Amino acid sequence: MKKSKSVHILISSTKTAADIRYLCGAEPPENAVLIQTGGRGTLIVSEMEYNRLRRSVKRGITVLHPALFGSAWKKGPADWIKKCADQKNLSVGADFPLGLAEKLRRTGHQIKISGEAICPQREIKTADEISAVKNAQCTAVDAMNAAIKQIASAKIGKDGLLRCGKIILTSEMVRATICHTLLDHDCVATETIVACGPHSADPHERGTGPLRAGQPIVLDIFPRSTITGYWGDLTRTVCRGPAPAELKKMYTAVKVAHTAALKAVKAGAWTDDVHAAAAGELDRRGFKTETIDGVPQGFIHGTGHGVGLDIHEAPRVSSAVHKKLRAGNIITIEPGLYYPHIGGVRIEDTVAVTKTGFQMFASIPGGVQIEF
Amino acid sequence: MKKSKSVHILISSTKTAADIRYLCGAEPPENAVLIQTGGRGTLIVSEMEYNRLRRSVKRGITVLHPALFGSAWKKGPADWIKKCADQKNLSVGADFPLGLAEKLRRTGHQIKISGEAICPQREIKTADEISAVKNAQCTAVDAMNAAIKQIASAKIGKDGLLRCGKIILTSEMVRATICHTLLDHDCVATETIVACGPHSADPHERGTGPLRAGQPIVLDIFPRSTITGYWGDLTRTVCRGPAPAELKKMYTAVKVAHTAALKAVKAGAWTDDVHAAAAGELDRRGFKTETIDGVPQGFIHGTGHGVGLDIHEAPRVSSAVHKKLRAGNIITIEPGLYYPHIGGVRIEDTVAVTKTGFQMFASIPGGVQIEF
Repeated sequence: MKKSKSVHILISSTKTAADIRYLCGAEPPENAVLIQTGGRGTLIVSEMEYNRLRRSVKRGITVLHPALFGSAWKKGPADWIKKCADQKNLSVGADFPLGLAEKLRRTGHQIKISGEAICPQREIKTADEISAVKNAQCTAVDAMNAAIKQIASAKIGKDGLLRCGKIILTSEMVRATICHTLLDHDCVATETIVACGPHSADPHERGTGPLRAGQPIVLDIFPRSTITGYWGDLTRTVCRGPAPAELKKMYTAVKVAHTAALKAVKAGAWTDDVHAAAAGELDRRGFKTETIDGVPQGFIHGTGHGVGLDIHEAPRVSSAVHKKLRAGNIITIEPGLYYPHIGGVRIEDTVAVTKTGFQMFASIPGGVQIEF
Repeated sequence: MKKSKSVHILISSTKTAADIRYLCGAEPPENAVLIQTGGRGTLIVSEMEYNRLRRSVKRGITVLHPALFGSAWKKGPADWIKKCADQKNLSVGADFPLGLAEKLRRTGHQIKISGEAICPQREIKTADEISAVKNAQCTAVDAMNAAIKQIASAKIGKDGLLRCGKIILTSEMVRATICHTLLDHDCVATETIVACGPHSADPHERGTGPLRAGQPIVLDIFPRSTITGYWGDLTRTVCRGPAPAELKKMYTAVKVAHTAALKAVKAGAWTDDVHAAAAGELDRRGFKTETIDGVPQGFIHGTGHGVGLDIHEAPRVSSAVHKKLRAGNIITIEPGLYYPHIGGVRIEDTVAVTKTGFQMFASIPGGVQIEF
């Protein structure tokens, strides 16, 4: 007897939204359920979402609302799955909601957590996907250029603060410049980082308040296209006015690490080897990664991550992941160093992996650190 | 023997982010775990997030990274919970990840789904929270005024399209006006709706392309403050140029339903009665809610929802929820009508429930429909 096709259930959430969008060609609304059997899918949405989704999904996806199959919205996903899945053996991801799994088991369903990714093909980007990430990345470059121009044109006050005319230049003002530029290109970025001095020592600190001369300013821009749903990711670190010697050394080390990691990128290279190429350069230059008084410092994150419909997706490029890069992967390369008494330096580009190396999407011409 | 306090585990995701932010006073990063015991919590984050979170959380929350308690990031949450929770009986929400629950059960943990909300107090807003939603709502009003001004000042071409000078006015252009205005007030809105004609017949269709005279244009603006994390929610429906008689009737019916629902709002009122007040007015005016050829039409959604750290939260105001409103609830009142051959009309305000009625945060003076 031929084995029946496995039925995979996805419940819309942060963790599944990109898979559902990939499979259906449309962003899933809140509380949507996708029942996937082979290449076909049934997407169950509320009455108010039905007509919109029906128009926008890919071929092979059937959109339903519960009244169409004798259920109701308030009966909830256990009832919908019972009525729409054509078998009792269901495959789900590890993030599947426990409460729903228990309800389904009580009605005789077998729920098995699939060890495999539901969309492993998401790691290998098509030409359209590469183009979508490239567009988002070009927008990030435009926004970066606008931000650097604003910082470069600021005057340094006697108090060391940056000023535009009489106004003190702040993280918020530069972030506004970045976000307005992104918006002009149909991109949105909610967590843009403009972190100066001590703030820059924490990789994900967004930054607030006045910008100062002689301190690192980390600019991390990761826009999402509101049209395609794909992300870009770009970081530069700049310093207005002369940089302290220690910061210059950090900057050079991160730049060398960034180049070394990129040089290691090609189809067939191991992700942890790419990470080791960056980490080795930082280590050789005496920049230690250690925990002092409980606070991790040095190179305290991985070298990169996949970028696509999720800002952080497979493949991860870190010491914890031993996986071969493949042509068509899109990854960031973003080594960094972070020390509380100096601040942080990070340099990040997003590239597509090729057979012989990588394709850089868009970058800042001539690099990087500004000193005046 | 005194019963030990229950230990509740939250894993950061779309469904738990608002609870974690409420409990910790800080937005949780990806893959964070909160172990909550009574009023105290332990928030486990990665090394790179540790110092930033440590600075920003509320009193009573301890931030840890796995190396501090003899684990590692790659060992994952089952190991962290095993090492940090002081008992084996754990309470979780229905959305808790199935894979993690199974791992914990294999190490002897009892996982029980709590029937209660982890933060029921989120439904009753404090003065600070009311102020935060009010600020977001005032920003939405500014953006709405800018959008209406842009539509009102457009000329109507012989082809019925709206024009600014020689340029055809589109949904995208009005959405850009809205989003730039929001950004100037530190708010972000990713799903802003500017839907004209047939597009407006689907409540969550964002809208694309040229705007036309004589058709409904639904403007739905729901910004989130990037500073406080709280949302606002505001919808108006406008029509440039004379509106068809049927659209005028729909508009009047929705306006009356909106007023009737607001009149029913006060502490002690039932959510389904508030919905019935709106639905009854629409019905009485002959606007039916039914499914034709599979497509739901009429009043195809609930009357409103709670607004706070989530854009959609408790209490829901619909026929499916029988719950007493309480002073301090913040809810939307947003009846609407949707017919494929005419389009949609929705009018929405966000209000705080009081003992005697409601407090309107901010609204468009003089209302609403524009005809020129």
